[in-house]
Amino acid sequence: MMCQTPFKRERSVAQKVKLSTIAESLGISTATVSLALRDSPLVAASTRERIKEQARALGYIYNRRAASLRTSRSGIIGVVVHDIMNPFYGEILKAIESELDRNQHTFILSNHYDSVEKQRNFIETLLQLGGDGVIMSPAIGTPPADVQLAEDNGMPAIFVARRMEELDLPTYRGDDSYGIALATNHLIGLGHRCIAMIGGTDQTSTGRDRYSGYVNALRKAGIEVDPALRIPGPRTKQGGFEAAVHFLSLPQKPTAAVCWNDLVAIGLMNGISRAGLTPGVDISVTGYDDLEEASIATPSLTTVWNGQAEVGRLAARALLDKLAGSSAPDGMHLIKPEMRIRQSTGPHREMAENHHLV
Amino acid sequence: MMCQTPFKRERSVAQKVKLSTIAESLGISTATVSLALRDSPLVAASTRERIKEQARALGYIYNRRAASLRTSRSGIIGVVVHDIMNPFYGEILKAIESELDRNQHTFILSNHYDSVEKQRNFIETLLQLGGDGVIMSPAIGTPPADVQLAEDNGMPAIFVARRMEELDLPTYRGDDSYGIALATNHLIGLGHRCIAMIGGTDQTSTGRDRYSGYVNALRKAGIEVDPALRIPGPRTKQGGFEAAVHFLSLPQKPTAAVCWNDLVAIGLMNGISRAGLTPGVDISVTGYDDLEEASIATPSLTTVWNGQAEVGRLAARALLDKLAGSSAPDGMHLIKPEMRIRQSTGPHREMAENHHLV
Repeated sequence: MMCQTPFKRERSVAQKVKLSTIAESLGISTATVSLALRDSPLVAASTRERIKEQARALGYIYNRRAASLRTSRSGIIGVVVHDIMNPFYGEILKAIESELDRNQHTFILSNHYDSVEKQRNFIETLLQLGGDGVIMSPAIGTPPADVQLAEDNGMPAIFVARRMEELDLPTYRGDDSYGIALATNHLIGLGHRCIAMIGGTDQTSTGRDRYSGYVNALRKAGIEVDPALRIPGPRTKQGGFEAAVHFLSLPQKPTAAVCWNDLVAIGLMNGISRAGLTPGVDISVTGYDDLEEASIATPSLTTVWNGQAEVGRLAARALLDKLAGSSAPDGMHLIKPEMRIRQSTGPHREMAENHHLV
Repeated sequence: MMCQTPFKRERSVAQKVKLSTIAESLGISTATVSLALRDSPLVAASTRERIKEQARALGYIYNRRAASLRTSRSGIIGVVVHDIMNPFYGEILKAIESELDRNQHTFILSNHYDSVEKQRNFIETLLQLGGDGVIMSPAIGTPPADVQLAEDNGMPAIFVARRMEELDLPTYRGDDSYGIALATNHLIGLGHRCIAMIGGTDQTSTGRDRYSGYVNALRKAGIEVDPALRIPGPRTKQGGFEAAVHFLSLPQKPTAAVCWNDLVAIGLMNGISRAGLTPGVDISVTGYDDLEEASIATPSLTTVWNGQAEVGRLAARALLDKLAGSSAPDGMHLIKPEMRIRQSTGPHREMAENHHLV
C-alpha cells in the first residue's frame, strides 16, 4: 500500500495543475479546456485547436487510460423518488452521495410524484446519458417493464424505501411492520388503550405494512381494533396539523397517536398545542423515521429510527458491487428499526380525557 | 377558441390510446413502444421491427410534426441549487415545475453544495443531453465562463435567489436588504433595542444584503450597531437550535432575534423553549421566507414573505420567453418582500431580561 502513495499523489497533482494552468493562460474556464481536450463539439473548432496547441506547448499529457476508464463509465447516477424535498428521502440521498463520493459522480435527481410517466421519462433520459445506474423508490403502479428497460440496457436499478413484488432487484428499506409495532407497544406499555393511527395510505407497500403492524400490536395486547381510529392520508407537517382537528374530535377520545412519519407527528403536535393541550402530557405522539429534526422539536419527538442513512449507504454499495460485476443475490434487505424515546410520549392519565374537545 | 376544442381533444386522445394499445397488444411497456417508434438503439432491432409492424397493423399514425418539434427541444430542464432539500429551494422548484407543466418536461435536479466543480459537471451533463435551459442559484465563486459555456451553446441560464454581478442574465430574487429591514423595523416598533442577527454568511450576495439591511435599519432608528450581536453561520434548524446557547449567553442580553431564515428561527425557538423561556413572550423571533411551515410552528412564526413561488414562476416564464426567441432585456428582477406578523414576536418587556441565562 505505502509504495503506491507517492505515485498516486504525483499523478493527481500533475493533472490538476495542468488543466487549470491551460485555462488560466488562455483566460478561459477549465470546463471549456476539459471539453476541448475531449473533442467536444460544444467548443468551437477554432477554440478547440487553440486549446490543444496551448496544452501541447505547456507539456500537458492527456491520460489516455484515465480517459478510457471514464468512457466506460459516465459517472452519472440517477435518483428518482416521490419527492426529494421530503427530508426522509433527503437523508437517504445524502448517504448515497456520501458513499458514492460526491466528487467522482454527477447525481441527477428527479421527483416522480407517483406519476409513472414522469418516472419513465427520467429513466429514458438517464439511458440516453449512459447513466451508470438508477436508485429509485418506485412510483405507485410502476409497470415492471419500465424498470426492466433500464436493466436490459446495462443500467442496474436499486430500490429504496419501497419494494416491487414483481421484480427481484436489490431492495433496501426498513422493516415497517416491526417498526410501527415498536411504537404501538411503547404506547401500550405507558397505559394507553385508545390509540389512533394518523397518515399513510394503502396504495404503497409501506402504508400497508405499517397499518398491519399497528393492528397486530393492538391485537396481541388484547385491544380491539377500531377502524374509525385510523385517519389515513397525511404525510406532511401541514397534513398532520390539519388532522389535529379530526383527531381531537374523535368520539372515542384517543389519548395517543401513532403517526405515519415525523413530519405528520410534528404537525399534529403543533395542532394539539394550538388547541391548548400539551403534547407528551395530555396526548402522547410517536413519529417515524427519526429525522434530524425529531430531537430538536418541542417537545422532542419519541420516534422510530428507520435507518435512512443505512438504506442510502447500502443501496449505494449494492450499486457499486453490481457495477464491479458482483454476482451476489438480489432481493430484499430489511433494516431493523429501533425506538427512540423522548418527551412526546408519557403515561396515560385520566385527566387527559377531560381536556378533550368534542 | 371554442372551435378548436374538438380538434385538440381528438388529437390527444387518439395518440394516447394508440401508443398504449400497441403496448398492451404486445404485452410490453409503452416506454419500449415509444423508444422503438423513435428508432432508439435501446430497443433490440428485432423487437423494434415487431413493434413497428404491430403499429402499422393497428393503424397508428406517427405524428411527424410533433416528432420534429420534439427533436428541436429535448424537453429537459435542469435546476441546480445549493441544496434542493432546503424547503426554500423546494418551494421555488415546485413553482417552476407548475409553471413549466410537469407533464411536458423532464426536470433534472442537482445540488452543488457550493462546489463549483459539481455545478460545472452538471452543466456539462445538461449540455450533453441537449437540455433546453438551466435555472440555477450559482455556487459561491462560480467563474462566469462556466455559465457562459451554457449560453454559448444555446442553453439559456436563468438565475434565482443569488445574482452574479459579472453576468447580465435574467435574475429573480427577493429584495433582501428591504426584507430584513422590514423585520428589524417591526421589532424596533415593538420596543426592542437589543436585537441580535442569527445566521447567514458574507460569502453570498444574499448574506451581505441581509446584514446591511439589518445594520441600516438599526442606524436609522438611532440604535448603535454592536457587531457581537451577530452570530453568523447557521442556515438550518439544527444550526438555529445550537445557536440558542450562544444567543442566550450574550452579555448584552438581547430581547429579540432577526433570523437568517425560517429554519434557523424555528430551531432557535426550539432552543429557547428548551431553556425554559417562551418565544414570542420572553424573546421575540423573526424568520425569513414564510415557508409553509412558518404558520403552523408553535408559536406561529412572524416572518418575511420572500416570494419563492413568484421567483420560481417568473424564472420559468423568463426561460419560456427566451426559448420563444424573446429579446426582452435581461437583468435583475427584485420581488418586494412583505411582513407576516404572527405570535413569535411581542412587545419588549423588562421581565424578559431577568429570565436570561448568563
